[in-house]
Amino acid sequence: MTTAATSETTLRVRYAETDKMGVVYYANYLVWFEVARTEWLRAHGWTYREMEAGGAMLPVIGVQCEYLRSAQYDESITIRTIGILHSPVRVEFTYEVFKQDGTVAARGTTMHAAVDLKGKPCRLPEKVREVFA
Amino acid sequence: MTTAATSETTLRVRYAETDKMGVVYYANYLVWFEVARTEWLRAHGWTYREMEAGGAMLPVIGVQCEYLRSAQYDESITIRTIGILHSPVRVEFTYEVFKQDGTVAARGTTMHAAVDLKGKPCRLPEKVREVFA
Amino acid sequence: MTTAATSETTLRVRYAETDKMGVVYYANYLVWFEVARTEWLRAHGWTYREMEAGGAMLPVIGVQCEYLRSAQYDESITIRTIGILHSPVRVEFTYEVFKQDGTVAARGTTMHAAVDLKGKPCRLPEKVREVFA
Amino acid sequence: MTTAATSETTLRVRYAETDKMGVVYYANYLVWFEVARTEWLRAHGWTYREMEAGGAMLPVIGVQCEYLRSAQYDESITIRTIGILHSPVRVEFTYEVFKQDGTVAARGTTMHAAVDLKGKPCRLPEKVREVFA
Repeated sequence: MTTAATSETTLRVRYAETDKMGVVYYANYLVWFEVARTEWLRAHGWTYREMEAGGAMLPVIGVQCEYLRSAQYDESITIRTIGILHSPVRVEFTYEVFKQDGTVAARGTTMHAAVDLKGKPCRLPEKVREVFA
Repeated sequence: MTTAATSETTLRVRYAETDKMGVVYYANYLVWFEVARTEWLRAHGWTYREMEAGGAMLPVIGVQCEYLRSAQYDESITIRTIGILHSPVRVEFTYEVFKQDGTVAARGTTMHAAVDLKGKPCRLPEKVREVFA
Repeated sequence: MTTAATSETTLRVRYAETDKMGVVYYANYLVWFEVARTEWLRAHGWTYREMEAGGAMLPVIGVQCEYLRSAQYDESITIRTIGILHSPVRVEFTYEVFKQDGTVAARGTTMHAAVDLKGKPCRLPEKVREVFA
Repeated sequence: MTTAATSETTLRVRYAETDKMGVVYYANYLVWFEVARTEWLRAHGWTYREMEAGGAMLPVIGVQCEYLRSAQYDESITIRTIGILHSPVRVEFTYEVFKQDGTVAARGTTMHAAVDLKGKPCRLPEKVREVFA
């Protein structure tokens, strides 16, 4: 198991992401996780788009998220992401979502399995595995 | 130009569809329009899924929507849809969105162009054109 | 800890809920969970809307979901939901998401804390606690 | 009628924003419009959040959008926005959505009516009207 360096992404909360409770709807944190891991890959010299073009995908096979403080409309949110290669076919990302005041809004994890374009399990491309090294 | 009969779809407003103003976020009406035209096709003996499997798609090339009254969480919404065949390559749907109390929440229109799976303009399958007859 | 009876909800996959992988985007299962627990409450004589009107909310404080098989556009999905009262201030729901062919697409859990309209922890209304009995 | 200067916003297409056709789902352009007008206000010294805090909201009463070319996952999108004050109670925004290669993906317009926090029509705050001057 190898841990790659942390990356950070910043985004601003959209009105569309709030709900009638006045804060960000819980499912939207998973969308932010997707943005964060895309940026993590890019920060390490790869794009998810290239990986898909190269014939490999990383569908999510599990997610968990813990919500600590609500996030507000128009707040500037920072997500700190860590990628972990569990095996040549399995990758995990962990996320910490920070509010503008530096407190933690949420913490989460996604687990991914490498599959080819037909959805069959496959080894991650060597180039992508190196990203995690 | 041929007008097919009206169809009606009912759905219940999801919490996810509201925003911090406490009512349904404006972009979600377009999602409801998609649900409504899918049900319109089904009510006329076709499914959009079959059409795609048959090699034709109907991407939206234009939309307009007028918002009259806001829709609330958990409200039962009814959408009355009319499909219009403008030409062998162009289809229009019009929508009226009714609140639970029978008043109109919104009115809209989507215009669609038939394309094949590569995105090239094509004639709508004969079978689909007949739906509008 | 008391377990209430199961309820079932059925919904049809929207085009909007798919992504470029051709199947349902992973965050949308959490939206379905919300629909399912709303229907669970309704099946037991309560609505989330009434509860909010009564001054209590049940924000999600944790979620986990395991994805087993992908769900397709236009598929009819059934969600089996169980509600569990952990304490006067904490509720859990578990969900099983079934594909049209009866296989399991996903399994998940959400944990909720009762709060008043100002976001302060509070006891669940007696009437709601009875639902779980 | 007064036209304020243009502002530009850039965003990157999220995987969540695509659908099974492989490109951005049509309703998501309206979410981008919301991001763009929020940034327009900010660029002119105001935030929508402050305006709401000050007791005025600008719900959308009409929208139209024309789709010219599809937008792809991970593409960098630029939106050029113009705000127009039609009257002390009515505001319009127009949007041009540019793809990474500089071609136009979509063009749209939203019309807004100023209302107070109870949803009653009201005059836009003087400070906001000045933004459009």
